[in-house]
Amino acid sequence: MLIGKVAGSVVSTRKSENLIGNKFMIVHVLEPMQNGAKQLIAVDKIGAGIGEYVLVAQGSAARVGSGLENAPVDAAIVGIIDDGTGLE
Amino acid sequence: MLIGKVAGSVVSTRKSENLIGNKFMIVHVLEPMQNGAKQLIAVDKIGAGIGEYVLVAQGSAARVGSGLENAPVDAAIVGIIDDGTGLE
Amino acid sequence: MLIGKVAGSVVSTRKSENLIGNKFMIVHVLEPMQNGAKQLIAVDKIGAGIGEYVLVAQGSAARVGSGLENAPVDAAIVGIIDDGTGLE
Amino acid sequence: MLIGKVAGSVVSTRKSENLIGNKFMIVHVLEPMQNGAKQLIAVDKIGAGIGEYVLVAQGSAARVGSGLENAPVDAAIVGIIDDGTGLE
Amino acid sequence: MLIGKVAGSVVSTRKSENLIGNKFMIVHVLEPMQNGAKQLIAVDKIGAGIGEYVLVAQGSAARVGSGLENAPVDAAIVGIIDDGTGLE
Repeated sequence: MLIGKVAGSVVSTRKSENLIGNKFMIVHVLEPMQNGAKQLIAVDKIGAGIGEYVLVAQGSAARVGSGLENAPVDAAIVGIIDDGTGLE
Repeated sequence: MLIGKVAGSVVSTRKSENLIGNKFMIVHVLEPMQNGAKQLIAVDKIGAGIGEYVLVAQGSAARVGSGLENAPVDAAIVGIIDDGTGLE
Repeated sequence: MLIGKVAGSVVSTRKSENLIGNKFMIVHVLEPMQNGAKQLIAVDKIGAGIGEYVLVAQGSAARVGSGLENAPVDAAIVGIIDDGTGLE
Repeated sequence: MLIGKVAGSVVSTRKSENLIGNKFMIVHVLEPMQNGAKQLIAVDKIGAGIGEYVLVAQGSAARVGSGLENAPVDAAIVGIIDDGTGLE
Repeated sequence: MLIGKVAGSVVSTRKSENLIGNKFMIVHVLEPMQNGAKQLIAVDKIGAGIGEYVLVAQGSAARVGSGLENAPVDAAIVGIIDDGTGLE
């Protein structure tokens, strides 16, 4: 997993049926945890707020354990970090 | 997921049987969301037009929820962003 | 998916039983579609020739829809691009 | 897999239900094994200590064989290297 | 898949139960096939020797067709290249 900071969200009205009801958050990945991209879009089932540090799971893991088995989702916020001090 | 801009399409007549009927879009990935490649090829089941900003799912997620479970597809357009202003 | 140009092949006599009968092509990935590597090895079930531009699926998608569900294959040529003009 | 050094851990109280009971370790990936990120967060089921060199599996492999099939986990510590001398 | 050269091995005594009996080889990835990392750790079921050029499958493919379906393995040596001349 990686840790990032929630920076905002994007809206998509025309989308896959299996994505309806999901929020798409823009996550800024912490520099040392960037495996390429500085930002990614992750679905949020935890209720993370802007500015919070979050744990993001990618790949098939993003669908597992979030009730998203049938959704075309490859990144999900799966936890909120209690204290991000010193991470950045 | 990542966000990109649809730039065009490519045609493949000789292809895997399970790909028949799909459109292959060239997507220019937004710079901060590039996890390596500047461009990728994604299947489109949403009907995105050239110039539109789209949400792309990669990996096994691209097959899930798009009726493509049995197709050799690793990237799919799964949503169209309502307003791409400020993303680029 | 990504697009690459078939550059040659490699031979492996001692290999996983589930790989027997497959051809291993060296694919040069188009520069803007490189998600890291300039080259990769892909199995070819379509019959691509050297110099042809091909569509490559990676990850679990490479096994799906190619009759390779049980083979240790993470990249497959799944289509031949009709016209590669302007792609490179 | 890759080898990294355990550098610490992070705490997440608000998290996916399927993650409860797991420890999230910060792993510093050995430079030649970095496939992008210098650091990643991995679940630990082996009991690795800070400073130890560990084997990390990523992707769906992280869930397999760790009793985490239903957890949104994409990286796991799956072994502790006996002797990390010369690796770094 | 990618091609690399077997450079050595690492030993892990404390490891996931499902990894018992496996050899962990250090593979130096050929420069043009590096998708990030210069080195990776791959399980070897073929019996590759140090200095040999090998075909490595990554992701879920590494578990398939190697009798490793339940092991936390994300990279496996699946073939030995007959002749690596000119590859490097």
